Amino acid sequence: MNSGDVAWILAASALLCIMIPGLALFYGGMVGSRRILNMMMMCFGGMSIVAVLWAVFGYSMVFGNSIGGAGLLGDVTEYFGMEQLLAEDPDAPIPAPLFAAFQLFFAGITTAIIAGAAAGRMKFGAWMTFAALWATLVYFPVAHWVFAFSSADGSVTGGWIVNSLKAVDFAGGTAVHMNAGIAALALALVLGRSAGWPKSQHTKPHSRPLVLVGAGLLWAGWFGFNAGSALTAGQSASVVFLNTAVAACAGLLAWALVERIRLGSASSMGAASGLISALVAITPACGAVSPLGALAIGVIAGAVCSLAIELKFRLGFDDSLDVVGVHLVGGILGTLLIGFFATEAAPNKVNGLFYGGGFELLGIQTAATLAVLAYSFVVTWVIAKILNVTMGLRVHEADELRGIDIAAHSEAAYLSDEQPVELGSPHRG
Amino acid sequence: MNSGDVAWILAASALLCIMIPGLALFYGGMVGSRRILNMMMMCFGGMSIVAVLWAVFGYSMVFGNSIGGAGLLGDVTEYFGMEQLLAEDPDAPIPAPLFAAFQLFFAGITTAIIAGAAAGRMKFGAWMTFAALWATLVYFPVAHWVFAFSSADGSVTGGWIVNSLKAVDFAGGTAVHMNAGIAALALALVLGRSAGWPKSQHTKPHSRPLVLVGAGLLWAGWFGFNAGSALTAGQSASVVFLNTAVAACAGLLAWALVERIRLGSASSMGAASGLISALVAITPACGAVSPLGALAIGVIAGAVCSLAIELKFRLGFDDSLDVVGVHLVGGILGTLLIGFFATEAAPNKVNGLFYGGGFELLGIQTAATLAVLAYSFVVTWVIAKILNVTMGLRVHEADELRGIDIAAHSEAAYLSDEQPVELGSPHRG
Amino acid sequence: MNSGDVAWILAASALLCIMIPGLALFYGGMVGSRRILNMMMMCFGGMSIVAVLWAVFGYSMVFGNSIGGAGLLGDVTEYFGMEQLLAEDPDAPIPAPLFAAFQLFFAGITTAIIAGAAAGRMKFGAWMTFAALWATLVYFPVAHWVFAFSSADGSVTGGWIVNSLKAVDFAGGTAVHMNAGIAALALALVLGRSAGWPKSQHTKPHSRPLVLVGAGLLWAGWFGFNAGSALTAGQSASVVFLNTAVAACAGLLAWALVERIRLGSASSMGAASGLISALVAITPACGAVSPLGALAIGVIAGAVCSLAIELKFRLGFDDSLDVVGVHLVGGILGTLLIGFFATEAAPNKVNGLFYGGGFELLGIQTAATLAVLAYSFVVTWVIAKILNVTMGLRVHEADELRGIDIAAHSEAAYLSDEQPVELGSPHRG
Repeated sequence: MNSGDVAWILAASALLCIMIPGLALFYGGMVGSRRILNMMMMCFGGMSIVAVLWAVFGYSMVFGNSIGGAGLLGDVTEYFGMEQLLAEDPDAPIPAPLFAAFQLFFAGITTAIIAGAAAGRMKFGAWMTFAALWATLVYFPVAHWVFAFSSADGSVTGGWIVNSLKAVDFAGGTAVHMNAGIAALALALVLGRSAGWPKSQHTKPHSRPLVLVGAGLLWAGWFGFNAGSALTAGQSASVVFLNTAVAACAGLLAWALVERIRLGSASSMGAASGLISALVAITPACGAVSPLGALAIGVIAGAVCSLAIELKFRLGFDDSLDVVGVHLVGGILGTLLIGFFATEAAPNKVNGLFYGGGFELLGIQTAATLAVLAYSFVVTWVIAKILNVTMGLRVHEADELRGIDIAAHSEAAYLSDEQPVELGSPHRG
Repeated sequence: MNSGDVAWILAASALLCIMIPGLALFYGGMVGSRRILNMMMMCFGGMSIVAVLWAVFGYSMVFGNSIGGAGLLGDVTEYFGMEQLLAEDPDAPIPAPLFAAFQLFFAGITTAIIAGAAAGRMKFGAWMTFAALWATLVYFPVAHWVFAFSSADGSVTGGWIVNSLKAVDFAGGTAVHMNAGIAALALALVLGRSAGWPKSQHTKPHSRPLVLVGAGLLWAGWFGFNAGSALTAGQSASVVFLNTAVAACAGLLAWALVERIRLGSASSMGAASGLISALVAITPACGAVSPLGALAIGVIAGAVCSLAIELKFRLGFDDSLDVVGVHLVGGILGTLLIGFFATEAAPNKVNGLFYGGGFELLGIQTAATLAVLAYSFVVTWVIAKILNVTMGLRVHEADELRGIDIAAHSEAAYLSDEQPVELGSPHRG
Repeated sequence: MNSGDVAWILAASALLCIMIPGLALFYGGMVGSRRILNMMMMCFGGMSIVAVLWAVFGYSMVFGNSIGGAGLLGDVTEYFGMEQLLAEDPDAPIPAPLFAAFQLFFAGITTAIIAGAAAGRMKFGAWMTFAALWATLVYFPVAHWVFAFSSADGSVTGGWIVNSLKAVDFAGGTAVHMNAGIAALALALVLGRSAGWPKSQHTKPHSRPLVLVGAGLLWAGWFGFNAGSALTAGQSASVVFLNTAVAACAGLLAWALVERIRLGSASSMGAASGLISALVAITPACGAVSPLGALAIGVIAGAVCSLAIELKFRLGFDDSLDVVGVHLVGGILGTLLIGFFATEAAPNKVNGLFYGGGFELLGIQTAATLAVLAYSFVVTWVIAKILNVTMGLRVHEADELRGIDIAAHSEAAYLSDEQPVELGSPHRG
């Protein structure tokens, strides 16, 4: 075991934790001031319940030996309760409890991303139940497909997408982003639109500075996500890191430019969304492309997603904070663009269409995409429907209009006791 | 020297630094809008003055060779001014200046935690003086007891709690959390209650989103605190990291559930407090328990602390931001629960009651707890009393009601020059 | 290649990314509430456009082999598009793509710092154009002078300041801080003052808590900046880390003390500015001095910069957020104080005046300072002048007074839909 690798994954896992307040700010700033606490609670609460399930049986469902060697689901009994992880395995590349902690945040963050589609109108208990069921029935299986490598000696069988189909997904374009994105669509469809959507004031961002700060913290944490997925501190993590930085900046510029051309000015909401869209798209591709490829993927993601977020207005579904436009569309883009931009000079060592690799990789990436989208949409829709008829998903409309923060949490985000004060000394400018 | 270990402690130390803005937000959001700057200044100012003392003599008082081999206090002359740390020691596990920087944040953060008990009514100069005296007379000795290991070859004698009593405290349940918690109680008693407490508006949280963001940043930084205390990047840091993640999430859920049952809804303040309570409790225990043990400790801490914070209303002391209910109670819980949940499969390699270890460990943990509580309470109370009769601790009541930010810092946190603006374009909604 | 070194630089680079939201908050809180989005967009946008240029040709201009061996500019063709960095070089101390990512943030952050001088009155398109030109014509050359080491075997020639002049600048007192600071002065002079400056409300800080949080995040990120510049995880990074922590705290205290003496109270704005001033000053010196030297530099920087920020009122230039007073003055101080406080016991292994080193080092540091100041001021002034006569730098005065956020980005930062709400339960107090 190499302590340098361990050091990096420890740091990367802590970076992932920064994504929790980052996401809570990013989403919380985008909603009205009487909805922000609920939004943040959905992020923190969703993360927390998934983490507890992860410790009990989730890790085992994802990284346990594949049941029947089928590549569909890990053996839930193998690491039940994680007690086995305390025993040090000198042959492991990094300690198992560290890998389990790193992936714990993947599970929690993926689930929390979905919350953006359900802003301001979902019962908190229903959300927590949804999060638990979704992680168990959707995330854990799909993460097994994509993240569980079979061992070289054949003693451990992993998931079908990464081992049999051999799709390229470095850090979770399929299992994380398009998975959360399509689930957000299913949930939004079952949940229905906010009262007064899309015109009412309470569905609009109440603090754009929080959105930008959240995007910045998400960006920093994303380096843990992507470069941490190398699971080693060397050349591959380094290429991934550089690609992630370049793509994010290119995405911000592309979205801003499209806005400038279409609407006359570049908004902060667009900049933040462009940054995140590009980070989503580079997530599966970060180990497969060159820095110029990352630049291209960032530009494409920023530009396409800036148009994609208008779909909800045309089609009439209230994906409140554009989880579909950003995570679903960005995740699909990144996963498929690997088929074009992959170069064998990059860590994944495979060529896409533009580098002479033919159509094969593109076909594989498309198959992985369709499998995840179909499974996640159907199962999520069924979960949401069942919860809707049993416990009910929506708060009362009166509570929604009054503000879900008071209705669901008996709290208001902001409390003023301030008289305006004139400040004198100019040197504090 | 192993560069992987150094890499991790460098990163862990930077994570500790994130706890400063994290704590300032966590506390700052919990006070009224005319008290937040003072609260944040107490965090930043307390951290800063302790850091300077640390550089001059604090490090030496904690990690210098124990005076007379008594295990009570390090030799203040040994590393006075820290010049000696510039010389590289190839036998040290990590470079001495890095260890000194890592522990610098422990000293500063522990002191800053106390500030939560004195929100909105303490003279800033008195706070800074208190912080300097408290670090010198309480933290530095107690940290010597708990954190200064004797060297294997007997050339360096460390503190009595860790070497003679052999209490288990991985990252500071005694020296950090119960120490700060009991000191907060002593300071709150000497300082007295806020004007109008507990009903007046200016003592209530003015921005709960800031509290949640602060909790999130504290959580991320806490991984540096706990997993950094392994001082090496390997199996033990990995187990500690996983335990810290699991406990935190369990604590959030437990507090939320207790609130839901008792009060009908789970609040964001409760979620943030549950997260922090569990982090406090897992701090001493993170290297001694299994992930399921961490889960149990998180649940117990979240549930018990959610009840403990009501003590102040029953007993009538104004521990403004629940330093007692969270850090004192959580710190005691974590330290004592080791006596039950410790398993020799974990890095500390010792069994508690539930794992067949008998009552011995529980007795040791209780002794360490009582020693720290008694010493810290008495000395803190004396410091506060002396400052109260000499320089005076309280601001004038008129200044308190007007807002301590203006009175103590000639500033107001927020300044509005805004006319309400209607935003049109729905696609930015 | 040592994976521990790689692990630290990966983590350090992610810490640098935290400086982006940190700077956006630090600057954003200091401006009026109708200017904050523009301010944050200048930070994120400036960072992004420079990062893209960096990927295409900037890295090559800085770290390419010096054209003609002159030490003035790297060969722009050598790493054009960065494709070459994908090939692993087993002899490199850290992977080239990681070094490129680490330095990408240096370039972007340095450019973004300048934005503080142009708050609330510069066309966004003009700022983005300025950022692109400034990075290309000023930062890339100067960074080559200061950061591009010649190789030991003579095959690669680097910049003249670090290799021929042999000035000491560990992490960028010249190339980063005084460079951005003098550029801010030149831009402020060409741009002119804000309408109503210095008295009008809209030029004053609207949220001081954001300033403090931003300062805290900048501080945490700064450890990546300074200790990351060691490019290795060992003794030198450790000394640098400790010096950076100590200097920052000393700077906060010094500024606060000067304010207390001169104005009667210590402000949060002063504390945040003192922290940053000291961080600026220790940046070049962090590898050259002892912890007590760092303490002295922190105190001097905090005290001197607290006076220096009043220059703008005496001389009448609107350096809105004190980039000159903090980065220019702090950067010069740190660079020159190395000539006094450097000790050969520290990683840079050179003695300054106080350690028997004579005046030579001070002369070298002065020469480097003058060269950077002269080049940067002149070229920046010319860029600003040309942009002013071609595309125009200023927004219309009416737009400035109405708020640049609406004028330039069609957005308002804050949107209220809140009725005041009374909160009952005291236990959440």
